Amino acid sequence: MKKHGVAILGFGVVGGGVADLLTNNREEIKNYLGCEVEIRKILDLRDFPASPFASLVTHDFADVLADEGVDTVMEMMGGSHPAYEYTVAALKAGKNVITSNKEVVANFGDEFVAIANQMGVSYRFEAAVGGGIPVINPLIGCVRQNKVREVRGILNGTTNYILTKMFTYGDSFENALADAQAKGYAEANPAADVMGTDACRKITILTALAADKLFDVNTVHTEGITGIRKADVLAAEKLGHRIKLLGRCILGDEGEVVMVSPFLLPSDSPLSTVSGVYNAVEVVAEPLGNVMFYGQGAGAGATASAVVGDLLPIIAYGSKNPIVPGFNRVDYPASDSFAGFKSKKYIALPSGNEEKVREVFGDVAFIESDECAFITSCESEKETDEALAAIGVPVLSKIRFL
Amino acid sequence: MKKHGVAILGFGVVGGGVADLLTNNREEIKNYLGCEVEIRKILDLRDFPASPFASLVTHDFADVLADEGVDTVMEMMGGSHPAYEYTVAALKAGKNVITSNKEVVANFGDEFVAIANQMGVSYRFEAAVGGGIPVINPLIGCVRQNKVREVRGILNGTTNYILTKMFTYGDSFENALADAQAKGYAEANPAADVMGTDACRKITILTALAADKLFDVNTVHTEGITGIRKADVLAAEKLGHRIKLLGRCILGDEGEVVMVSPFLLPSDSPLSTVSGVYNAVEVVAEPLGNVMFYGQGAGAGATASAVVGDLLPIIAYGSKNPIVPGFNRVDYPASDSFAGFKSKKYIALPSGNEEKVREVFGDVAFIESDECAFITSCESEKETDEALAAIGVPVLSKIRFL
Repeated sequence: MKKHGVAILGFGVVGGGVADLLTNNREEIKNYLGCEVEIRKILDLRDFPASPFASLVTHDFADVLADEGVDTVMEMMGGSHPAYEYTVAALKAGKNVITSNKEVVANFGDEFVAIANQMGVSYRFEAAVGGGIPVINPLIGCVRQNKVREVRGILNGTTNYILTKMFTYGDSFENALADAQAKGYAEANPAADVMGTDACRKITILTALAADKLFDVNTVHTEGITGIRKADVLAAEKLGHRIKLLGRCILGDEGEVVMVSPFLLPSDSPLSTVSGVYNAVEVVAEPLGNVMFYGQGAGAGATASAVVGDLLPIIAYGSKNPIVPGFNRVDYPASDSFAGFKSKKYIALPSGNEEKVREVFGDVAFIESDECAFITSCESEKETDEALAAIGVPVLSKIRFL
Repeated sequence: MKKHGVAILGFGVVGGGVADLLTNNREEIKNYLGCEVEIRKILDLRDFPASPFASLVTHDFADVLADEGVDTVMEMMGGSHPAYEYTVAALKAGKNVITSNKEVVANFGDEFVAIANQMGVSYRFEAAVGGGIPVINPLIGCVRQNKVREVRGILNGTTNYILTKMFTYGDSFENALADAQAKGYAEANPAADVMGTDACRKITILTALAADKLFDVNTVHTEGITGIRKADVLAAEKLGHRIKLLGRCILGDEGEVVMVSPFLLPSDSPLSTVSGVYNAVEVVAEPLGNVMFYGQGAGAGATASAVVGDLLPIIAYGSKNPIVPGFNRVDYPASDSFAGFKSKKYIALPSGNEEKVREVFGDVAFIESDECAFITSCESEKETDEALAAIGVPVLSKIRFL
């Protein structure tokens, strides 16, 4: 039987999960790939003397590069460096690269795809968005015959867990975050999750695949969930809605709007039913309609499944494989079109401002609340911000409706 | 630019949708496939003098076979014959075949895959399950590195619409069916939908892909929704559950259980939130966990998206493409293992039988009801049926819990 050699870069949670999957599901993988997968090298700063893979561990990336038996490098180190340098070197050495590292894909995907195409090897990254959920491959392989109108998703399990706790148990953000940390769903430094940075990288990748445009992640309008208050949760419940942190890429006639922000979702929308650490990506396309991909967005096993799954087309189709559309770097900021983005919004101001709100916003619907809470008509970011500036009081909350 | 010629067999709703998609999304398809798709022949019994495709219509399949410019035949006629004969002839003539026809895939998929492999062409059928939802391709391409434990789904939009109406508006089955017919979601003769036949074909196909075994559809335990009564809906609501018609393929240590039947789903299960004409397929696998694919299970546009999407791997990978696992015909009936299938069940008998139920079933939980309604422990089909026979009164309802 044919053999395919792989190297694992980063023997942490995901790297360990890949080694376990390749070991435990050896038979399934043989049937599936028609090929035996051999782990030849494991790169990590640490040693793992107790591991059954101890003898494969190296601290020197040159060992991986020099091993001609390594057909595919699986990069699961995270972070931009040295993941970037290792990826470039591996591709230039004629090795396929698979990654679970959304940061490096969002930042350098265009370079990697270009080098891979040039070298006739594959660069794949199913695990970078939605953990184990097949999202990237269906988006590349099953949807693009449509006019894609929008890709949106719950892309971060930590924040979705926190929001679910706030809705189900009436927890404050701080308590829900502490609980997520206690359960291991949030890191000690949760900034990348709760500030929306992680979701921003993922929607940037999805935008590249849906719109053929790779934006600078730093130019994507990104709001996290740190500002969501108990009062907002109560207001949402009164309206029959739920608050979810969404990454959205909307492909309109006047260009694309890319953003990460909390949204109010009607309770019958498919994304609103996604709870806890689960992720989901919804695609809206013509004539397809709406489809949604749902599952575990993180965790060793789920993510490892996506990494190993990326071997299939590499082994089956070889160098004919790299159909990765998108990743054309654009030189204008994603935020350019944001001021014109129109949505209905829930806004909370200190109580007593009802008269001013009527003057500036016109005939809005007020929500029963201790605060001055109301719903705007569907208007642009610019219009809303100007109106709020004219009122000139602190804005307690501003959450868009989907 | 490269050209790829296609023929459309059956110019009904789906065939018309494919022609529209290929016309309206010409640019997207060129970008997507790197290739222009040309409709060269349309086979139908009827003429379409007012159609822009009128000149392509033929009544003779020999015209399609003889056209060397037809690389791929798209069969959307439905039914087993002559779809079977045309598919075999097209494959043997070295043409790829794409189909939306679940009946012919479920009945003859093994033959088609074998001929396609022999001829070095592709046989693809994404549209046969779940309409536009990418299900088959992710199942073939993204999941099989796992140990697949179960594939289950809401595979029929008509019955899901009827059940949703019964739950949301308290409609009877008859009224909900009449409404579905008025809206065009159910056919004048709804038997294939409401009796579970359609879902049975689809779960048979999914089983072939998940378990590498093609069962005779006639041996799959199949129950429809005609027996679901208002009283069952009320009981389900009391239990915080919903009733859904599921196709299930459970891959256990003692073999596979394949079935179509109504199930009681807890309201927080992802499948229970799928309402109206939507479909969803959930895969349970190790180490992946649970993933779900959701979307429109029927309709011209959605189904056409899946049919045209199947062109991608054909054009991109050519004859290296046919990775269709499964479709190994087995010579034992799927029903063999059904008697041992264990589940908790909701059972309704005429009131006044409580004492007998306690004698035979032991200490069960009764549900507040005008009937003698109760929940069994988790026991096999055989055990439940024997117990019910011992009680010897008419069984008003028997619905399994997921």
